[in-house]
Amino acid sequence: MPLVVQKFGGTSVADPERIREVADHVARTRRRGDAVVVVVSAMGKETDELIRLANEVSPQPPGREMDMLITAGERKATALLCMALHAVGIPADSFTGSQAGFITDSNHTNAKILELRPDRLRQALAEGRTPVVGGAQGVSEGNVTFLGRGGSDTTAVALAHALDAHSCELYTDVSGVFTADPRLVPAAQRMQSVSFEEMLEMTASGCPKPAMRSVEFARTWGVRLHVRSAFTWEPGTWVQEEDPSMEQAIVSAVVHDTSEAKVTVSGVPDRPGIAARLFRLLADRDVNVDMIVQNVSDHGVTDISFTLPREHLATGEATTAEWAAEVGATAVTTDAAIARVSLVGAGMKSNPGVAAQTFETLADNGINIEMISTSAIRISCIVRQGQVEQAVQALHAAFALG
Amino acid sequence: MPLVVQKFGGTSVADPERIREVADHVARTRRRGDAVVVVVSAMGKETDELIRLANEVSPQPPGREMDMLITAGERKATALLCMALHAVGIPADSFTGSQAGFITDSNHTNAKILELRPDRLRQALAEGRTPVVGGAQGVSEGNVTFLGRGGSDTTAVALAHALDAHSCELYTDVSGVFTADPRLVPAAQRMQSVSFEEMLEMTASGCPKPAMRSVEFARTWGVRLHVRSAFTWEPGTWVQEEDPSMEQAIVSAVVHDTSEAKVTVSGVPDRPGIAARLFRLLADRDVNVDMIVQNVSDHGVTDISFTLPREHLATGEATTAEWAAEVGATAVTTDAAIARVSLVGAGMKSNPGVAAQTFETLADNGINIEMISTSAIRISCIVRQGQVEQAVQALHAAFALG
Repeated sequence: MPLVVQKFGGTSVADPERIREVADHVARTRRRGDAVVVVVSAMGKETDELIRLANEVSPQPPGREMDMLITAGERKATALLCMALHAVGIPADSFTGSQAGFITDSNHTNAKILELRPDRLRQALAEGRTPVVGGAQGVSEGNVTFLGRGGSDTTAVALAHALDAHSCELYTDVSGVFTADPRLVPAAQRMQSVSFEEMLEMTASGCPKPAMRSVEFARTWGVRLHVRSAFTWEPGTWVQEEDPSMEQAIVSAVVHDTSEAKVTVSGVPDRPGIAARLFRLLADRDVNVDMIVQNVSDHGVTDISFTLPREHLATGEATTAEWAAEVGATAVTTDAAIARVSLVGAGMKSNPGVAAQTFETLADNGINIEMISTSAIRISCIVRQGQVEQAVQALHAAFALG
Repeated sequence: MPLVVQKFGGTSVADPERIREVADHVARTRRRGDAVVVVVSAMGKETDELIRLANEVSPQPPGREMDMLITAGERKATALLCMALHAVGIPADSFTGSQAGFITDSNHTNAKILELRPDRLRQALAEGRTPVVGGAQGVSEGNVTFLGRGGSDTTAVALAHALDAHSCELYTDVSGVFTADPRLVPAAQRMQSVSFEEMLEMTASGCPKPAMRSVEFARTWGVRLHVRSAFTWEPGTWVQEEDPSMEQAIVSAVVHDTSEAKVTVSGVPDRPGIAARLFRLLADRDVNVDMIVQNVSDHGVTDISFTLPREHLATGEATTAEWAAEVGATAVTTDAAIARVSLVGAGMKSNPGVAAQTFETLADNGINIEMISTSAIRISCIVRQGQVEQAVQALHAAFALG
């Protein structure tokens, strides 16, 4: 019997009524002839609520206890969905990550999957039952582990691979992947299909769903993803190997991200290894540096700018200031009012004019570019946060994505 | 190092502030020199809330899924309490029932403990750490089981026995066991000590805490219980073997229960085995019958009355009606407006006047007795529910318990 993995995010199972709708959808899939393995996240905003409780009892909750706490959310959702499935005549069994066979490392709150032994799920499927698995969970030496935010997508992709499913459906509160955020660009189109490579660049550039790690796994293992809505149940966007027979779109989508901040160091003595030491220090303190720009040296000194998630700004600034004092740089300044706008497209590789058209479009709209970074299939520009909406709209129109 | 088991009920860990107070108390106990094993219930009314969710998604939730759902509550509480303990300098580890070694039968929602293998708790204690165990949980063939409401007391007593603790402290929202419900009788006194036997009769007669099953285990295994308040932290009531050197109180307490209803069958043909068949039918449908009274036969027919928990009334009435039609009884009537008032005292055995004084006191107060049942150390009377407060007050005064 063909097998599909269906993953439902928090908004899809936010309350009893939504859980009953999900059960109806799983039942329809079963009756159409597919076997189903379901993966669920915690209901609605429950994970945030649990983290809030943790912060109220402790300034620094131990990771082992955070994982014990947070995984209670998915556990509830699996049990409730199984009850709703039984109520519509679909025999179903809930499984924690441990019961489903997710063996992880012991890096609590952000564990990695080491091995997957889904024997109990295979057994349930062989009996014609529908397993419902808690997302983002595993076990390490008898202790509960959590795979991190967005880890339910990873759970779903890993199960689709291990159980040889024909596809992995990621149900969420949007109806697919769009050419731009439809809240900013009313003309944005849902993409029918996007390649793994483009999807990875898009998630890295601010597209919130699906979670980047799950796209990486899907690409590695060749698992076809179908990103779709648990509210309309309409077909959404396929994420898969690109079809080499088709001509590639030069630009597929405009993506933006307003969650970063910028740190600039001026008057840095231009000696070999001096920048390397800064980024080693930042890495050692778990600061995720994203874009880095270093100006051409002028009279033996240079400027270095980099972006980082805004929640890392305090640590990033302090670390940079220590290093600046050490090496004799002139000043450290920060800027939290930035945004990044990115163009992604697999056809960009063979079309050198895209960068020029991007810069012209922004200039024509009076938008100043503060930093630039590119990959083979992506161009990203840092602009003022107040101008990001205008930048996204202008680029979406300029590349005729509507 | 001497070991104490401390169990905290739902009201004791209802919110982050209460959890921090519990952590402070456990820390004080540790610093006084005792090793501690903590058992916690779910926070506040969370178990009720989870049951409400289950009923919203399914008319008849499967037991396995109910247990997966409900045990999420204690899991949260254990993790949060561990975080709070770390924050006050007490290294602590949370354990689910399964991790703590509670092997049960697979009777979901009301599982029995078959075996307890607390190896991981022993290991944690040996390392100077404080284990925090989810109450009322176990595992059966890889599936999560729930020991039923009040099961956290049982978890605590079982651990106190298995780990050879010097006592088991049950922290709750009342400051001990009283000579009557202080909400009805302002003069009610907290008892310093009560025997296992009296405590069992009291819990069977409506005293809400501690849970009866835990008292049975405590008596069997000789575990001293200390019922006390998590709000005042004052010494409460010891439940233990009675001290044979002391004279026993004739009457120790007045207990009442307003949770039952009464079923009466009139005109039952008085043939051998006819009543036995009724109570077998009721037992087969899980109706808990409590008091039974059968009148003297008059012209070959008799009346039978029995009490049962009010939530079993619908099933109990339907079952009795089927049986009544079968045996040719005249009528089945029910009454949900009853209450039971009971006197409990270990010294009653050797003082035959207690029953007479009870009936006189109720009669003097114009309270009609509808049914009577007695044991060696208890007298229970069914009265109108509207008169129960007056009955408790009158008996508490008559036996000078204030």
